[in-house]
Amino acid sequence: MQSYILTEMTWPEVKDALSTVKMAIVPVGAHEQHGPHMNESCDAVLATEMAKRLAARLHPQVLVTPTVNMGVSPHHLNFPGTISLRPETLLAILRDMVVSLQRHGIDKILFLNSHGGNQATLGLACATFSQELGVDCYYAKTTASAKQAMKEHISSSLYGHSCEREVSEAYYLAPHLVRPERLEKGDIVEGGRWEGMRPGKPLQGFYRYEEMTRNGCIGDATRASHAIGMAIVEEALDELSQAVRTVLAESVQDRVTHGEGEFAV
Amino acid sequence: MQSYILTEMTWPEVKDALSTVKMAIVPVGAHEQHGPHMNESCDAVLATEMAKRLAARLHPQVLVTPTVNMGVSPHHLNFPGTISLRPETLLAILRDMVVSLQRHGIDKILFLNSHGGNQATLGLACATFSQELGVDCYYAKTTASAKQAMKEHISSSLYGHSCEREVSEAYYLAPHLVRPERLEKGDIVEGGRWEGMRPGKPLQGFYRYEEMTRNGCIGDATRASHAIGMAIVEEALDELSQAVRTVLAESVQDRVTHGEGEFAV
Amino acid sequence: MQSYILTEMTWPEVKDALSTVKMAIVPVGAHEQHGPHMNESCDAVLATEMAKRLAARLHPQVLVTPTVNMGVSPHHLNFPGTISLRPETLLAILRDMVVSLQRHGIDKILFLNSHGGNQATLGLACATFSQELGVDCYYAKTTASAKQAMKEHISSSLYGHSCEREVSEAYYLAPHLVRPERLEKGDIVEGGRWEGMRPGKPLQGFYRYEEMTRNGCIGDATRASHAIGMAIVEEALDELSQAVRTVLAESVQDRVTHGEGEFAV
Amino acid sequence: MQSYILTEMTWPEVKDALSTVKMAIVPVGAHEQHGPHMNESCDAVLATEMAKRLAARLHPQVLVTPTVNMGVSPHHLNFPGTISLRPETLLAILRDMVVSLQRHGIDKILFLNSHGGNQATLGLACATFSQELGVDCYYAKTTASAKQAMKEHISSSLYGHSCEREVSEAYYLAPHLVRPERLEKGDIVEGGRWEGMRPGKPLQGFYRYEEMTRNGCIGDATRASHAIGMAIVEEALDELSQAVRTVLAESVQDRVTHGEGEFAV
Amino acid sequence: MQSYILTEMTWPEVKDALSTVKMAIVPVGAHEQHGPHMNESCDAVLATEMAKRLAARLHPQVLVTPTVNMGVSPHHLNFPGTISLRPETLLAILRDMVVSLQRHGIDKILFLNSHGGNQATLGLACATFSQELGVDCYYAKTTASAKQAMKEHISSSLYGHSCEREVSEAYYLAPHLVRPERLEKGDIVEGGRWEGMRPGKPLQGFYRYEEMTRNGCIGDATRASHAIGMAIVEEALDELSQAVRTVLAESVQDRVTHGEGEFAV
Amino acid sequence: MQSYILTEMTWPEVKDALSTVKMAIVPVGAHEQHGPHMNESCDAVLATEMAKRLAARLHPQVLVTPTVNMGVSPHHLNFPGTISLRPETLLAILRDMVVSLQRHGIDKILFLNSHGGNQATLGLACATFSQELGVDCYYAKTTASAKQAMKEHISSSLYGHSCEREVSEAYYLAPHLVRPERLEKGDIVEGGRWEGMRPGKPLQGFYRYEEMTRNGCIGDATRASHAIGMAIVEEALDELSQAVRTVLAESVQDRVTHGEGEFAV
Repeated sequence: MQSYILTEMTWPEVKDALSTVKMAIVPVGAHEQHGPHMNESCDAVLATEMAKRLAARLHPQVLVTPTVNMGVSPHHLNFPGTISLRPETLLAILRDMVVSLQRHGIDKILFLNSHGGNQATLGLACATFSQELGVDCYYAKTTASAKQAMKEHISSSLYGHSCEREVSEAYYLAPHLVRPERLEKGDIVEGGRWEGMRPGKPLQGFYRYEEMTRNGCIGDATRASHAIGMAIVEEALDELSQAVRTVLAESVQDRVTHGEGEFAV
Repeated sequence: MQSYILTEMTWPEVKDALSTVKMAIVPVGAHEQHGPHMNESCDAVLATEMAKRLAARLHPQVLVTPTVNMGVSPHHLNFPGTISLRPETLLAILRDMVVSLQRHGIDKILFLNSHGGNQATLGLACATFSQELGVDCYYAKTTASAKQAMKEHISSSLYGHSCEREVSEAYYLAPHLVRPERLEKGDIVEGGRWEGMRPGKPLQGFYRYEEMTRNGCIGDATRASHAIGMAIVEEALDELSQAVRTVLAESVQDRVTHGEGEFAV
Repeated sequence: MQSYILTEMTWPEVKDALSTVKMAIVPVGAHEQHGPHMNESCDAVLATEMAKRLAARLHPQVLVTPTVNMGVSPHHLNFPGTISLRPETLLAILRDMVVSLQRHGIDKILFLNSHGGNQATLGLACATFSQELGVDCYYAKTTASAKQAMKEHISSSLYGHSCEREVSEAYYLAPHLVRPERLEKGDIVEGGRWEGMRPGKPLQGFYRYEEMTRNGCIGDATRASHAIGMAIVEEALDELSQAVRTVLAESVQDRVTHGEGEFAV
Repeated sequence: MQSYILTEMTWPEVKDALSTVKMAIVPVGAHEQHGPHMNESCDAVLATEMAKRLAARLHPQVLVTPTVNMGVSPHHLNFPGTISLRPETLLAILRDMVVSLQRHGIDKILFLNSHGGNQATLGLACATFSQELGVDCYYAKTTASAKQAMKEHISSSLYGHSCEREVSEAYYLAPHLVRPERLEKGDIVEGGRWEGMRPGKPLQGFYRYEEMTRNGCIGDATRASHAIGMAIVEEALDELSQAVRTVLAESVQDRVTHGEGEFAV
Repeated sequence: MQSYILTEMTWPEVKDALSTVKMAIVPVGAHEQHGPHMNESCDAVLATEMAKRLAARLHPQVLVTPTVNMGVSPHHLNFPGTISLRPETLLAILRDMVVSLQRHGIDKILFLNSHGGNQATLGLACATFSQELGVDCYYAKTTASAKQAMKEHISSSLYGHSCEREVSEAYYLAPHLVRPERLEKGDIVEGGRWEGMRPGKPLQGFYRYEEMTRNGCIGDATRASHAIGMAIVEEALDELSQAVRTVLAESVQDRVTHGEGEFAV
Repeated sequence: MQSYILTEMTWPEVKDALSTVKMAIVPVGAHEQHGPHMNESCDAVLATEMAKRLAARLHPQVLVTPTVNMGVSPHHLNFPGTISLRPETLLAILRDMVVSLQRHGIDKILFLNSHGGNQATLGLACATFSQELGVDCYYAKTTASAKQAMKEHISSSLYGHSCEREVSEAYYLAPHLVRPERLEKGDIVEGGRWEGMRPGKPLQGFYRYEEMTRNGCIGDATRASHAIGMAIVEEALDELSQAVRTVLAESVQDRVTHGEGEFAV
C-alpha cells in the first residue's frame, strides 16, 4: 500500500512525486487529555493514520504533510498535560504550510482533522486562504462521514471524546493509544451548565470539559471494539476518497480579484 | 412591551437599568446581497429586531447593545454592494464591546446572530473571551431553534438565504426589507463544486455564492408569508428566552487562572 | 429627494447604481453618553442623517454605506452605557469596508464623521489607505464647515458635546434623539486638569470626560433650536457638497509605487 | 544651564537624578526632505534642542530621553532621502519607551514633537498609554504655543515646512541645519487638489507633498532670521514650561479599572 | 529506561508525574530537505530522540512535550518538500506551549533544538517569555555541546547539514532516517556569495541553501558511522544533563516587575 | 574624508548621490547602562561613528541613514536609565526603513550593529526582508571582525560590555562617552546562574545583567586605551570594507517567487 508521506521522503523523491501530486493532506490533531484510558496524543495520531490511509487510496495524486500535532483545546486545559494553541496560532501554522506547499506547486489542500475544537478555525482558514492565496482549501473531520457505521454501532446519546467511537478507531488504527484495562464510561456531571450548550441547543458557548465529565470522557468506551473501528474508518475512507476524487478533477478556483468591480454573475 | 435598548437611552437611564441588568444582547448581522427581493441590510435588521423582542421577554434583566451591522461575508463579495469584514475584524469589534460592557458591570453576553458566515468567528470569540476576560459569552443563531416551525413550513431541501424562511421572518419582523413584487426562487447552479461542500458532506470548504446561485438566493422565497414568519420567530423567542433564563440564574464561571497548576477535577 | 442608500437596496439596484456612482460616503459615529438629554446613539444617527442628505445633493454620483455605529470613545467609558472601540479596531473596520467597496469599482471614499474622538484615527486611515490600497480617501466632521452659522448662533466658549450645537442638529435631523424636558447646561468642573489640554493649549493629552463635566455635557443645550440646527446643517451641506464635487471631478491619485526610486517632482 | 540628558549620563548619575525627576521629555522628530536649504534631520534636531532647553528650565524635575529621530512622513517619500515610519511603528517605539521609563519610576511623559505628520499618532499614543499603562501622557508641538511671535513675524498665509518659521528656529537652535546660500521660497503648485484639504477646509485627506510644492518648501524661507527664531523659541519655552509645571504638581491619574462597573461621577 | 513522555501518557499519569516534574523539555525540529540521503523529518525526529534520552537521564524531574515538528527553514524552500514557518509563527507556538505548561505548574522550560535556523527565534522566545510569563526558559542545540567528540571525529571544514555529524547522529538515534545507499558528499558551489556570510565572517545575512550546495548537503556524509553518532550523542547528553541539573536546583527568577522603578543592584 | 550622511544632506544632494549609491548602511545601537564610566548612548554613538568611517572608505557607493538609537536591551532594564525595544518593534523600524530606502532605489542594506542584544533580531530581519521585499540585507557587529587586534590586546576571559574593548573603541571614536576618572573593572557575581548560559555553554537563556555584574560592566575597562581602540577599529574597517566591496559587485538576489513550484537547483 504505497503512498507519499513527506516526513519519510528525501527531496529527490519529493521532486519525482510532485509530477503527479495535486493535493496535500495536512493531518490536524491535538494534544489533550483523553480520559484515563487513552494517550494525550490520541488526536494527532489518529489524524496521521487516517491521512496515510487516505493517501494510499488516492496515490499518486496526494501527499501527506507533517502533522499539526497540537490544536485548539482550551476546554481541556484543566486536565493535566493538555497543551492548547490559540486559534490565531493554528491559523499561522496552516498559512505557513500552505504558502510552503504552493512553492512546490501544490494548490489544493485538505486539512484532515480529528479534533472538534479545531473545526471553527479550519473553516476560517479555508475561507481566508482560498481568497488570499489562490488555493483551494478543504477540511474534513476524519470519520464524520461514516454515518452508516455510526448509526449502526454507536448508541450513546452523548459521545465524541474518548468514547466507543474514538477508542474503536484507535483499536483499529493505533492500538497503542488505548489502555484496555482502564476503560471507563464517561463520568458525566448531570444537570450542568454544559447541557444547555450542546449541539442543537438554542445557545452555544464555551464551557470547560470538567464541567461536563469528571474523568474527561463522554460516551461509553467499554463498548469499543476493533470491528467497530474498522467499520467506521473504512466507511469514512470510502466517503472521503470519493469526495476528494471529485475535487481533484476540478481546476483551482480563480483567485478572487481585488479592486476591479467586475460582477461575476 | 418595555425593554432596554442602549441606542435609545441616556446615561442616567442606563445607570438605573444596570441595577437589574445581568446580560447584554449584542445583535450581530451582515451587509450582503440577499437576491433581487431583499435589502442588503437584511441580516443586520433581523438581528436587531430579534434582539429587541428577546429583550422585551427578558426585561429587566437584559439590555440590547448597538448592532454589529456588517459581518463576515466574503462568499457574497462578487455581488454588488456586499461589504465584508475579515474574521479578525469582527473579533476585535466584539472584544471591544465586551470590555466596554464589563466596565459597566455586565459579565454575561449573548451574541444574537442572523448570519451563518459569522458562526465560526462567534464560536472563537466566546471561547477566547470566556477564558481571557472572565465573562460568560454565548452565541445563538436568531431563529435556528425554531425546529418545529421549520419542519412544518419549510419544504425546500436547500434553503437559508433569502428563502422562504428568511423572507417570512422579514414579513413578520421588518417588512420594508422585502420587495414582494420581485420574489424569486433561487436560480441554482446544478452540478457545481459547492454541492460537495454543503453541511453534512464529507468535505467542507469555501465557495463563492455565485457558484451556487445565479440570483443570490436559495430556497423558494415565493412561498414566504407573514404567518410562517410569526411561527418561526415566536417559537425561536420561546426557546431562546427559556435558555437565557437558565443562564441568567447561574453565576459567572470563575476566570481561568494562569500559572498555578491547580487541577480542577 | 432620491439617493443611493446601500442598506435599503438590493444587489440588482446596486449594480445599476454603480454605473454612475464614483464615491462612497461612510457615516462614522459613536456610541457614547450624551448627557441626560440625548440618546447614546446620537453620533451614529447624526452621521447617518448627514450622509443621506449629502448623498441626495450629490445624486447619482455617491452612495451611502452602512454606518460605523461605534467609535473611539475611551474618555466617556466611565459614563454608563458607553461602548468604545480601540483605534486599531476602527482602522480594521474601515479598511475592510474600503477593500469591499473597491471590489465594486469604487475608489473614492469619504468618511463622514460626527465624533471628535475618531478624527485622529480617520486621519491615519486616509493616509494609510491612500498609499496602500490605491484609493482616494477623505474625511470630514459632519458640520465643522458651517463656520458662519456657528459664529452666529453659538456663544458658549466651551461647546461641542451635547451642547446647543449638537442638540440643534438633532432637533433638525433626528428629534427623537433629544429629551426636551431634560435639557441641561454642562455641569463643568472648574479648575480641572482638562483645562490645560483643550485645543489651542500648549499641551495636549488624554483626560476622562467626567474630569471636565459632571453631567457629561458641555456648552448650553437649553439654547438649542430647530432653526439653529437648520442653519448649521444646511451650511455644512453646502460646503461639503461643493468640496466633494471638486473631488469627484478629479482622477484618482496613482497608487504610490514601491521600490522603483523614481523621483516624482 | 544644567539639565538631565539621558544619552549623556551614566547609570549611577541617572539613579541620582531619579530622586527628583517626575517627568520624561521624549523628543519626537522625523527624517524627511526639507527643501533645498535644510538638512533632512531638521525635525529630529529641532525636537532635541527644544527638549534640552525645556529640560533646563524645569531642572531637576525632568529628564530628556533619546530622540525618536524618524517619524510618520509618507507624504514626503517621493523626495529623495525621506524615511518614513508607519504610525503603528511609531506607536510601538513610544510604548516601549514608556514601559521602560515606568520601570525607572517615571509616570509622566511628554512627547515633544516637531513634525505635524506625527500629531495624530501621538494623540492616539497618549490616549492608549494613559488608559493601559497607568501613566499620564502629554504631547506638544515644539513651538505651536508661540502664538504671539508667530502673529508678529510670520506673514505667509501658507507656511509650516522649511519656511520662515522653521528656518528661523534652526538659525537659533541649530544653524548647521541651514544652507543660507540656498534659501528659496516655496515653489507652490497653484490650483492643486491639496488646496481643498488644508486645515480649515471642509474635507481632509492625504496628499503627497510634491502635489503642493515643487521644491519641498512652503512659506518664504528667505525671510527667516535668528531674531525671529529666538522670539518663537523663547515664547514657546515660556508657554511649555509653565504648562508642564502645572502638570508636575498633579498626581498621576488613577489607572482606569476594568470590569468593575463602578461609575466615577 | 523510564521517562515521562507526554504524548504517551494519560491525564491521571500526568497528574502523578507532576508531583516530581520541575521542567518540560520541548523538542524543536524542522521539516526540510536533508539532501538525497536523509528524510525531510530528520530534525524533528532527532530532537525528539534526544529529548527522550535526556528525559531518561533526568527522570523523574522532567517531562517531554509534543515535538515542534516544523521550524524556520526559508533558506531550504527551493528544495522540494521543505515546509517553513515564519519566526513569529514559531514564537506563537512556543508561547502557547509555555502558557499551557504553566497551567500545569511547570515553570522551567528547555527548548531542545536540532535546527540552526531556529536558534535566533529561540533566543528571542527565551528572553520574551522569561520576562513576560514569569518562567525560566532555556534553549540548547541538541548536540552542540559535544565538543570533544566533534573535534575528534569531524574533519570537514564546512559541515552541519546532512553531513557526517548529522548522519552519524541519525545512525545512532533513528537509523530509518538514512538512505545508506545514497550517501553523498556536499556538492558545494565554490566561490558563491554564501562564502562571505558563513559564521565568523565580517558580514552575516540570508542566502538560499542552493546557493551553497547543489544537492542540499554540506560536509561529507559518507564518513558517518554509528560509533561517531554514539560518541557525539552521549557526550552531548552528559553535558546537557549536567547543565540541566544545575538549573533544576535553582528557584525560578522572580517575574520582572513593571512600573515600580526599583533598582535591583 | 567625504561620505554621504543622510542626516546632513538636503534632498537635491541626496538625489545627486543616488546616482552612485548602491547600499545603505543603517547604524543600529542601543540605549542602555554601560557601567559607571560610559554614557548610556554608547552603542548608538559607536555604531554611528563606525558607519560614517565605513561610508568614507566606500564612498560614493554607500550612504549612512539615521541611527536606530535604541535597541533590544531587556537584560539591562533594572539599571537606571536603560530603554529597551521589543524585538518586534526593532523589526518594524528596520522594515519601514528598508521600504523607504527601496523607494529611493536602494536595494542593498547593511545593518551595522554595535549591540549584542540586537543580533538575533537582525538575523531574522535579514532573512525576512530578503525574502519578502526583494532586497539583499546584511548585518555585522561593528568590530567583531577585528580578530587579530582582539587577540593581541584583550586578555579578559569575560568581556564585551563597557570593557577594555568598548572603552578603547570609544577613546578612539567618541571620547566624550567615557568618564576616565570612573573607570572600573567589572564587579562580577561569581557562581551565578549566568555562568551556565555564556556563549559556548550547553544551555542558553535569558538572565538579567545584574545577575552577572554589580556595576554593569564586565572585563577590565581600566586597561582601555586610544591605541587599542585604533587597532580594533581600523582592522574592523579593513575587514568590513573589503567584505562590502564584494557584496557591492554582485547583483541583488532575485526575489523569491511564490506559488510556482519551480525547483531552483
